[in-house]
Amino acid sequence: MSDLKLVRKFEVKDGFWGRYEKLVRDVVLPYQENALNDRIEGAEKSHCIENFRMAAEKLRTGKCDGEFYGMVFQDSDVAKWLEGAAYSLAQNQNPELEQRCDDIIELIGSAQHEDGYLNTYFTVKEPDKRWTNLHEAHELYCAGHMIEAAVAYAECTGKTRFLEIMCGMADHIYKHFIEEGAEGYPGHPEIELALMRLFRCTKEERYKELALHFINVRGVDSDYYKKEKRKCGWSVWGSNADDKEYNQCAEPVRMQKKATGHAVRAVYLYTGMADAAMETGDNTLAEACKTLWNNITQNRMYVTGAIGSAYEGEAFTKDYHLPNDTAYAETCAAIGLIFFANKMLYLERNRKYADVMERALYNCVLAGMQLDGTRFFYVNPLEALPGISGEAQTHKHALPVRPKWFTCACCPPNVARLLASLAEYAWHLLPDRLFSNLFIGGTLDLRDTFGGRLTLETTYPYDNKITYRFEPEGEMMSVPLAIRIPAWSAGASICINGKSAEYEMEESGYAYIHRDFSTNDILTVEFDMPVRKVYTSNKVSANTGKAAIERGPLIYCAEGVDNENDVLSLSLKKGGAVTVGEYLPNKLYGIQELYAEGYRETVSEELYSYEEPEEKECKITLIPYYAWGNRGLNQMRVWIPERK
Amino acid sequence: MSDLKLVRKFEVKDGFWGRYEKLVRDVVLPYQENALNDRIEGAEKSHCIENFRMAAEKLRTGKCDGEFYGMVFQDSDVAKWLEGAAYSLAQNQNPELEQRCDDIIELIGSAQHEDGYLNTYFTVKEPDKRWTNLHEAHELYCAGHMIEAAVAYAECTGKTRFLEIMCGMADHIYKHFIEEGAEGYPGHPEIELALMRLFRCTKEERYKELALHFINVRGVDSDYYKKEKRKCGWSVWGSNADDKEYNQCAEPVRMQKKATGHAVRAVYLYTGMADAAMETGDNTLAEACKTLWNNITQNRMYVTGAIGSAYEGEAFTKDYHLPNDTAYAETCAAIGLIFFANKMLYLERNRKYADVMERALYNCVLAGMQLDGTRFFYVNPLEALPGISGEAQTHKHALPVRPKWFTCACCPPNVARLLASLAEYAWHLLPDRLFSNLFIGGTLDLRDTFGGRLTLETTYPYDNKITYRFEPEGEMMSVPLAIRIPAWSAGASICINGKSAEYEMEESGYAYIHRDFSTNDILTVEFDMPVRKVYTSNKVSANTGKAAIERGPLIYCAEGVDNENDVLSLSLKKGGAVTVGEYLPNKLYGIQELYAEGYRETVSEELYSYEEPEEKECKITLIPYYAWGNRGLNQMRVWIPERK
Repeated sequence: MSDLKLVRKFEVKDGFWGRYEKLVRDVVLPYQENALNDRIEGAEKSHCIENFRMAAEKLRTGKCDGEFYGMVFQDSDVAKWLEGAAYSLAQNQNPELEQRCDDIIELIGSAQHEDGYLNTYFTVKEPDKRWTNLHEAHELYCAGHMIEAAVAYAECTGKTRFLEIMCGMADHIYKHFIEEGAEGYPGHPEIELALMRLFRCTKEERYKELALHFINVRGVDSDYYKKEKRKCGWSVWGSNADDKEYNQCAEPVRMQKKATGHAVRAVYLYTGMADAAMETGDNTLAEACKTLWNNITQNRMYVTGAIGSAYEGEAFTKDYHLPNDTAYAETCAAIGLIFFANKMLYLERNRKYADVMERALYNCVLAGMQLDGTRFFYVNPLEALPGISGEAQTHKHALPVRPKWFTCACCPPNVARLLASLAEYAWHLLPDRLFSNLFIGGTLDLRDTFGGRLTLETTYPYDNKITYRFEPEGEMMSVPLAIRIPAWSAGASICINGKSAEYEMEESGYAYIHRDFSTNDILTVEFDMPVRKVYTSNKVSANTGKAAIERGPLIYCAEGVDNENDVLSLSLKKGGAVTVGEYLPNKLYGIQELYAEGYRETVSEELYSYEEPEEKECKITLIPYYAWGNRGLNQMRVWIPERK
Repeated sequence: MSDLKLVRKFEVKDGFWGRYEKLVRDVVLPYQENALNDRIEGAEKSHCIENFRMAAEKLRTGKCDGEFYGMVFQDSDVAKWLEGAAYSLAQNQNPELEQRCDDIIELIGSAQHEDGYLNTYFTVKEPDKRWTNLHEAHELYCAGHMIEAAVAYAECTGKTRFLEIMCGMADHIYKHFIEEGAEGYPGHPEIELALMRLFRCTKEERYKELALHFINVRGVDSDYYKKEKRKCGWSVWGSNADDKEYNQCAEPVRMQKKATGHAVRAVYLYTGMADAAMETGDNTLAEACKTLWNNITQNRMYVTGAIGSAYEGEAFTKDYHLPNDTAYAETCAAIGLIFFANKMLYLERNRKYADVMERALYNCVLAGMQLDGTRFFYVNPLEALPGISGEAQTHKHALPVRPKWFTCACCPPNVARLLASLAEYAWHLLPDRLFSNLFIGGTLDLRDTFGGRLTLETTYPYDNKITYRFEPEGEMMSVPLAIRIPAWSAGASICINGKSAEYEMEESGYAYIHRDFSTNDILTVEFDMPVRKVYTSNKVSANTGKAAIERGPLIYCAEGVDNENDVLSLSLKKGGAVTVGEYLPNKLYGIQELYAEGYRETVSEELYSYEEPEEKECKITLIPYYAWGNRGLNQMRVWIPERK
């Protein structure tokens, strides 16, 4: 597989994702740069850059003014932002931004110890406690994010300074855990997937070895955190070192069957495992990944692709427990699920991975950001109840309106780096095959592989038609193209220059066409994109008797503002029609609404009453879930009771 | 009003409550006596009696072996048990039990300091910290329960030793808070209602003054707990002293409009307030009680009469937030709501108070105890989901099977004392009127008031017929009888000796009949007791599109064991019949099942699927909610989707 070649090769152009690409570049990255520099009024303080300044000062002078501020893993916010900036620079030259990135990288470098160690929390605040609390202190997690950023920056800009810095840290980690034999494994996985990227970028085998080490030792001594706690004598949050399920170390990873514990940590771990399994051909590891994937997607995933049912521990709970209004459904966890899906797709070519990737991207992840790019959800509930959401002690996390920033600001820069690197997910470019996984308009440079350029045009997800145009360097370009036909499409009509094309529908769910394309050749794919009602297994108590509405990759929801400020009285008509509205370019930055036949129930205002509720037929207006919460405090519901 | 005269005057005899009366006497009180003495294998340790032994030893010798064990309010478990035992002794002589009670009372007395102070936690563990942490340390709460027990024991047995002990403690409290002017008010209300009882029993005005003091100062200095925390330097649980809403002190009690915070504390406080309002004629206080009552019953009460929607703080949350599977719905809170309702009924004669009292009693409170009296629920969810309930981190509290005992064992003895004193709620005996509030079979001794005995016969709640028989001492007895006609009964057919009786239907919802009854006169009341479907306001998200089933005072539920082990696939048929089964004397100690026309939905086993679910007509078997969870781990649901 190739890593990060695609971000540089693919220029995003289409309406839907083009807007996001521009938004990330013009709004999100600058906004977050301001946030990291504490220049946003009324937002939670970040102090990220300042922490690096203080660490650098301390290394230079032996002391520094002020105090470290923020989470123990505050460094990772800068890392994710730099990674997003790198991707953006690959798409659009921006010398000022690049200079500012270079400056931050220099600052980072000056906060690095001579032995390669790099972490502002420990440098500024706890210089004597390095590597003593793997369970909570997230040194390896921060290192992982910094490594990812460094790899991205090197691959996107060609500049290697950051990579050198982080190789220094990786070497330091290697020395500590491999050469010096330190015990333990990270409380928050991330280093595994990062080291795999670093290995692929540098070809340095030791980084792969180190990634495999952390994967292999995890859960072998399942009491590690307990022992560490007894030994280290300090704690960040007083976490339970003995909750092995939560800590994802009850068993060696190859024996784990259920996705447990902190949802982001889980999918970051599985991403690293899947990547390692692919790289090493380790079947046992691959099988473990498949088992965990199945557990998540068949038992523990929201219809929006969100994961993590509980605020308590930001975690998975139990199979079939998917509450809507109290969902945790962290943006970062959906992003992590996309990472995992992407690696699984490399490991086992099957559209199901891309289907979930698309589901999580178009629904949970996009909902994580306000449409104007300036506010963010950490938590993405599937139901919002003004007066309760964000207010009741059980719903403090489930805000009905996006805040500007967070004390724990992991999600906003994670959205930025994902949206700035969608090419890596949309396309898989193997030596013998080009996979078209997600349908994002733009031009892919295939000159050094298949002899030309390929342009994808679409107004997807609002239209069902994808057009591929070819621009060979010579007369023809031979493209072995595999196009994902999503499971939600009963089939697809594939034409070349208007005539039915021959293709092979592969078991993987990809339509395969290998032929020579000449200039002006047009390959079109039309999906079957009906509105569909989706039902949940009756094991999910929250959704019994209810349906949700999907069209293509989009989950829809009903908001109060479109429905007389009361969506809780609505029910869908069983067998009723759901019609697709016109594209509304000026509503919520361009959406298509759906209109469902349904009922509005009039029940007494009394808390309890005995009159059978009256039902009046009505039209329910639905908007894409990703666009909810952009019009003020408002009821919202994805799962709606269905009645005859 | 009279206090505690009725327990001595009313001999419970009927099938339904007779069984409970016997159960409390033969099983619950002995079981709990064993628990308090740590003689139950496999149950949580109580250490209650042992704590008193240690305190007594320490007072005698200046030191004691061992350590205080249990909650800071562990003493209250003994108190509640003694109160229950006192009521049982009023009904049934039991010299051995009485002797053991006397022994415990002697033990309690020997744990009392010379200055009247009595609390084993402080005596054994924190002798220097008396009255320094009203917020958390629950000294006034324990004192309140001990006072209640002492009053009950005096009134039921005629023995005054316990009363003297507790008057000593009350005098000590009076001295501290009134004479010496100590600041503050109890973190856990209870002392207010207890002092009102002590006042009524002893006629000592100072106890009423002290009760009013605690009511009046609450929330006047709303920062009291904060200041106390700063001063006292120790904490029991690290409670938030600044959460004034939670601590029920954001405003003086007369200005409070919403029931907030810990649900048990709230209703104990309101009970004391209502009692004080009645005793003093304080209208402002009475109005505050009505406002709070309305907020609870119109916005924050489960259909089972349970209150407290959240595990977090065992507390009220927000209006219309009534989740079923994660409900807290503590048994003690429903008991407290009954206390509050009973005082409100004295304050303002209106059946609505008795209706709620009956709802909470027959549903939440009875569900709090296993039918055999040996296991207890602390939390009474309205939906049980094996695999999730009691297991997911969000459901740890919502156990699907009753445990034997609890570290915090407030509920079991609270059930015992309530069930042993139902006469106090069933009847209100005023000088000029006898109110029949709850319909419990047995004989009421009215010889010193209305000249004879009255026997109520019924198989209520399974039958709709109540029979009153009269046994005058002379030829006739003149009884001014007011019979509650529950709101669920559209009317009532009232006959005397088989012929329609003349009565006055009062605005209060009571049917009033005042006449001279002779021996053999039979007054019958037949309620209209149809099966009713109950609907929730659509502001309650958890219940939209759903109905529950009631008959008379009973809420019904569907359990898996009666419904192919799957109640989540069931829906009720809109407009469908619900038939009443035969009385089944051998099922769950005697119940009537209901059979509802409904559907069983077959939806794919897949987490998400797109086929419209198939519905097959079926019969849904429902059992009374109070009897759920008596047949092993099992699904249970009160609110069931309803479809055409």
